[in-house]
Formats: sequence, C-alpha cells, structure tokens
Amino acid sequence: MNDHDFLRSLVSCGAVRFGTFTLASGKTSEYYVDIKKAATRPDLLWEIAKRIAPHAQGFQRIAGVELGAVPIAAAVALETGIPFLIVRKEAKGHGTKAAFEGEMHAGDRVVFVEDVVTTGGTLVAAVDRLRSAGAVVGRAIAVVDREEGAAAALRTAGVELISILRASDLRVPG
Amino acid sequence: MNDHDFLRSLVSCGAVRFGTFTLASGKTSEYYVDIKKAATRPDLLWEIAKRIAPHAQGFQRIAGVELGAVPIAAAVALETGIPFLIVRKEAKGHGTKAAFEGEMHAGDRVVFVEDVVTTGGTLVAAVDRLRSAGAVVGRAIAVVDREEGAAAALRTAGVELISILRASDLRVPG
Repeated sequence: MNDHDFLRSLVSCGAVRFGTFTLASGKTSEYYVDIKKAATRPDLLWEIAKRIAPHAQGFQRIAGVELGAVPIAAAVALETGIPFLIVRKEAKGHGTKAAFEGEMHAGDRVVFVEDVVTTGGTLVAAVDRLRSAGAVVGRAIAVVDREEGAAAALRTAGVELISILRASDLRVPG
Repeated sequence: MNDHDFLRSLVSCGAVRFGTFTLASGKTSEYYVDIKKAATRPDLLWEIAKRIAPHAQGFQRIAGVELGAVPIAAAVALETGIPFLIVRKEAKGHGTKAAFEGEMHAGDRVVFVEDVVTTGGTLVAAVDRLRSAGAVVGRAIAVVDREEGAAAALRTAGVELISILRASDLRVPG
C-alpha cells in the first residue's frame, strides 16, 4: 500500500475526517483523527504495524500507553517478534495497579508506539514512569503527529519522535 | 505447539503459577493466572490467537473488554481477518466515552474473547452493553476458565463459553 492509498484508507474508515471540529480543549481543527477506527480493522492494523516495524528494530521492548496504542503495540510485536509493554495511564489514587504490564528488565531499550500525539504530555509522562522502572527510552513512533508541540516536548525529554503521518500531510486525498 | 508445551510456556513466562495465593476476594487459590504475562510475548500471543481463531470463524466482529482482552482481540483479528471492537469497562459516571471502540452495525454477529473468566460478571455486563447497541452475541472464548461460575452465568445470558484451558487442566507440567 503506497502513502496515498494508506491515507485514502484512513479517510474511508473514518479514522481521518476533514471539516471543522471542536476539540476537547475548545480549539477548532480542520481535521479529526481517531486511529482506533483504523487499528480495529485487521488490514489497516497490519499496514500500520508494517510502517512502524522498521523504526522499532534494535529495541528490546515496545511500549504502548493504554488504550489507543495497545492494539498497535501488539501488532508491531507480532510483526517484529519484540515483546511489548502496556503502560497504564497515570494511576488515579488507587495505587494497586502496576505502572505497566509485561516483562521488563532495568536497562532494556524501549521504543514507544502511539496512535496520535498532540502536545506530547501523555507520552512524556509515560516515558518518565517507565524510566523510573529502569527503561532506556530513546524513541517514540506515532501514527499521526498533530504537530502541536509533541516533537519538541519529547526532544526535551531526550526522545526522538518518528511519525508515519504529520498534520501537514493530511489533506483530502485525490 | 501441543497442549503440554503450551501449558509449559504459560508457566515459564509466569502467566500461570502454582502455590497458595490470596485473591482480591479474600479466597485462597492453588494457582495464579495472569494471561497478560503471555499475551505481551509475540510467540505466545500468536499461539493464543491460533487456538482461539477456529472458534471465531463465522462471526462478523470480535469483541474484547479492556484491558486484558485487547491484545488478544487484536491478534485474533490479525489471524482471522475479522475486525474487532474494544468494549470499555462500565463507565464511571463521566459518560463521555463510547461503550465500545470500532465499527459495529445492528445485527452483527459478535464473539467475545477474554483472557480469564471467573464468575463471568464482567463479561455478562459487557455482553449486555454490546447487545444494547444491536450486537448479536452467541459465544465467548476464554484463554482460561477458572471454573467459578462463568459458564453457567454466560449460559443464562444465552452465551456459549469455549475455554482453551480450564482450572481443572492446570497442574504443574511434567
């Protein structure tokens, strides 16, 4: 599947829509992204995994923050043979649940995968929690970068961001 | 991988342990099961998917309740080509999140996958929520049935339970 067909597939399943959308933050956006609409379809989940896999080579663990990144982390693990971790969102006071699920050893080189990054806040916090558990995190791979600060925030945290698609790539496919 | 090797693999990755364990309910158990320890390893996730796949044939959607069933639902989707749904746990009052993620049409025949079933309460509630959205649910497939009422509870709800392993199968492998 070439880049043009990939974007067309994302649009036809509703994962990417064009129009005027009001975000949770109150801001408006010319496009809407919900990668779960693509990641729950096996053909597109494979395509996403194949596009991420080359950038995950050399890492010992793949990490995905619940919930949107979990199918992607699982599919990249199946494509590459690299085990994965499910990183929980910030615990809400209960404190009984582990910060992550899956096996990790101190010093393991970990690559994060993510469906969509905006400011990068969720991802930077998840990187910090995994580093506290001994992970060496140097890279994150996003299906879509909304280009609202995530790359800079991650760079400040010492993490390189690789994106399959950027906001500036998103236009109505011909 | 034969049944014996499958059980050995579950034990060697810590997904099944033997001893005396105190459960959240206060009861004690002679074994401990955490299928996430297996489902985060690509070799075992494939093996789980291959064992579930034949029982998912003929269904139009696979459904998995967050969080433990999500990697399994994704892997079975990749193995079978059937799209999947992520069913959220009971909403906690906020009510802004959808009951499920993924595409479903009224009348779709849906099969649930689950990592571990005990009394079946979580699964019956999730089946009810998906039925309210128009799903036709006739079957659930669990990696491990702890045999503490789930099969009967699901039967009462009109759902057949198929288990890859039962509590009575779990013994220290030779």
